[in-house]
Amino acid sequence: MTRLKNFTLSCPIPIQQYPTVLLAHGGGGRLMHQLIEQMFLPIFGSPNDVQHDAAVLSLSSHRIAFTTDSYVVRPLFFPGGDIGSLAVHGTVNDLAMAGARPLYLSLGFILEEGLPMETLWRVVQSLKQAADSANVKIVTGDTKVVDRGKGDGIFINTAGVGILEHNQRINPTSVQPGDIILLSGDIGRHGIAIMAVREGLEFETTIESDSAPLADLVGELLSANIEIHCLRDLTRGGLASALNEIASAANVAIDIDEQKIPVREDVRGACELLGLDPLYIANEGRFIAFVPSSDAERALGIMEAYQEKRGDAKTACAIGEVREQPAKSVILNSKIGVDRLLEMLSGEQLPRIC
Amino acid sequence: MTRLKNFTLSCPIPIQQYPTVLLAHGGGGRLMHQLIEQMFLPIFGSPNDVQHDAAVLSLSSHRIAFTTDSYVVRPLFFPGGDIGSLAVHGTVNDLAMAGARPLYLSLGFILEEGLPMETLWRVVQSLKQAADSANVKIVTGDTKVVDRGKGDGIFINTAGVGILEHNQRINPTSVQPGDIILLSGDIGRHGIAIMAVREGLEFETTIESDSAPLADLVGELLSANIEIHCLRDLTRGGLASALNEIASAANVAIDIDEQKIPVREDVRGACELLGLDPLYIANEGRFIAFVPSSDAERALGIMEAYQEKRGDAKTACAIGEVREQPAKSVILNSKIGVDRLLEMLSGEQLPRIC
Repeated sequence: MTRLKNFTLSCPIPIQQYPTVLLAHGGGGRLMHQLIEQMFLPIFGSPNDVQHDAAVLSLSSHRIAFTTDSYVVRPLFFPGGDIGSLAVHGTVNDLAMAGARPLYLSLGFILEEGLPMETLWRVVQSLKQAADSANVKIVTGDTKVVDRGKGDGIFINTAGVGILEHNQRINPTSVQPGDIILLSGDIGRHGIAIMAVREGLEFETTIESDSAPLADLVGELLSANIEIHCLRDLTRGGLASALNEIASAANVAIDIDEQKIPVREDVRGACELLGLDPLYIANEGRFIAFVPSSDAERALGIMEAYQEKRGDAKTACAIGEVREQPAKSVILNSKIGVDRLLEMLSGEQLPRIC
Repeated sequence: MTRLKNFTLSCPIPIQQYPTVLLAHGGGGRLMHQLIEQMFLPIFGSPNDVQHDAAVLSLSSHRIAFTTDSYVVRPLFFPGGDIGSLAVHGTVNDLAMAGARPLYLSLGFILEEGLPMETLWRVVQSLKQAADSANVKIVTGDTKVVDRGKGDGIFINTAGVGILEHNQRINPTSVQPGDIILLSGDIGRHGIAIMAVREGLEFETTIESDSAPLADLVGELLSANIEIHCLRDLTRGGLASALNEIASAANVAIDIDEQKIPVREDVRGACELLGLDPLYIANEGRFIAFVPSSDAERALGIMEAYQEKRGDAKTACAIGEVREQPAKSVILNSKIGVDRLLEMLSGEQLPRIC
C-alpha cells in the first residue's frame, strides 16, 4: 500500500491564473508545453533530458514483457490509494505476472476540461511516489483534454515494459495437474474500500485498499529458483474470475478449499452488508501462483517472510490444487463440506473499481 | 492514408442481444471475456496464442523506443481515416521520429456505456487494417467502460515499442547550424478534414486527412545512410509548433522560407474561410527532417521517390535552414519578403483533432 505522505510541494502551475485544466492544456501549444515543462518534466525527469516523441532506452535483455491498462476508478482518491498509485501498481503487477522485472512506464492522461489543477498535481505526485517505490521510471507521456461533460476528471493509461531475466515459461499453458495454488494474502479489500467511499459507509476501522506493487515478491520467488507455472493478479472479477480464466486457458480443473481463503472480518462484514461475495471482489495487491507441490512449501515461506518484513499480517496460504477433470472448471469445497461450481463473474459487480 | 476498404465481416458480438456496450463489458466478467474472445482475439491474435496479463516478446536489439498517445478525436470517422487508423499512425509515427522501427502496439479502450457495438467493431477493423499496413502487431490490450455521460463514445490509447537498428542519435540535441530542414509533403490536411466535418462544410473536392504511417520512409532514409539529426512529426500545434519545439530544445535559430511550404489550394481556401493559419494546423502523416546540407539533396530525392511510388503528388521540399542566432527562435521569411517571428501555438486552435 502506498500512502501519500507529503504534500509539501505546491503546485508548479500558477493556480491563480489557471485554477482548472483548459482545453488548451491538451492542444499542442503554449499551455501544453507549460504543463509539460513546469509540472511533468521536473517531477518525472526525462531520459537523457531530451524532450522527444519517444523515449530511447537500452535494455539488458532481449526478452521483454509489454502491457497496458487504463484506469477510470471513481472516486479518484480512496483509503489506501488513488488513481495515480493504482495506475502504477496495476501495470507493474501485470508485468510481474508475466515473470518480468518492470522497468519503464508510459503515462497517458485524458483530462476533463475544468479539472482542478490541484487535483492533477496531487495525482502526479502520487504517480511519482508509487513509481519510485516500485522501482520503475515513467519515461514517456501524453496529455489530452476533452470538453467538459465528455470525460470524468482524470482517466489514466499506463503501458509498461519489463525484462525477463530467467527462462521459465510463466503462463496458463504451463499449469499442470498436481500444481498447488498459493494466494499471496487476504482478499476483497480494494473493492470494499472503493464501495465504502461511494456508498458513504463507515466501519469501525477504515478498510484500506490492498493496492501495492507485486514485482519484488515475484522477484524473490524467481531468485529462489521456485518453479513457477503461472501467476495471475486478482483484479476485476476477483479470485473467482482469475481461477476460471486459468482453468479455461490451461484446460484443467481447479479445486479450491473455501475455508482456506483469507478474508478479514471487517471485509466479510462489509460484504454481507453490501450483498457482495468476496470471491468476486477486485484486489490490487494480491495474486495467485501455480507451483509444483515440491516447491509449494518453500514458495509459501517466501511469501510469508515478505509479508512479515513489511509488517503485514501473514495471510499468504495454499488454497487448492489443480486436477485433470472436469476440465475448464473451478470447484469450491465450501465451508459446510459441499462442492459447488465457482463460476466466472457474470454481469457487473462493481463498476469502475480500477 | 488508410481507407477502410471492406466491411464484409459482420460484427462477431450478437447485435440483437448486445446492440450497445454495457458497463459489464469492462467489468472483468463474462461479457468482457466474450468481447475479448469473440471480437479482439480473432482479429488481433495473441502472441503464442496465450491470454495473459502481458505479452512476452523477443527483440533483436537492446536499444528500443517506447512511446504513448491517447486519441480523443471527434468525430470518430472523418475523410481519410478514423480514430482507429489514427491511433495506429500516431504512435507508429512517434516511434519512427525516434529513428526506431515500430514493432508492437498496446491498445487501451475507454468506451462509453451505450456505444453502438457496430461502431466499436468498425474501429477495431480499422485498427487491424492500419496495423497490418504499418507492419506492427497489436499484442496486448485493455478495455474499460465508463458510465453514460462520463466519456465520449471511444477513447483509445496506444503505446508502442520499436527497435533501433542504427547508431545515429536522432534527437533535438543533434541539430546543428547549417542543417537543412526538409518537409515530407504538403501541410494542413488532417486538421481541415476534421474541421470540415464538424462545421458541415462542403468543398468542391473532399479534403482527406493526410493520416499515414511514416516509418517506411524513415527506414528508407536510414537504409540509404542519410545522416539524420532530428525528426519530428507535425501533429498538434502543426509545423510552427514543431519548429519552435526544436529551436528551443536545440538552442538554435531556424529560418524558414514561407513560399516553399506546400499547402494545397483547397486547404488554403478552407483555412481562409475558417480563419485558420495552415502553419498551426495538425497533420498526421507529415514530418520535418534536419539533415546536414551534404545529405539534403539525396534525402529529398528519397522522399520524392517515396511519394511517387505511392502515387502521391511530389510535394516534399526543403523549407529552411538552421542558424546559430537568435537562439530558440523561428524566423519566417514571408511571401512579401518580410521576416517575422513564428511563435508557438498559443491557446487552442482545434480541440480534439487527434
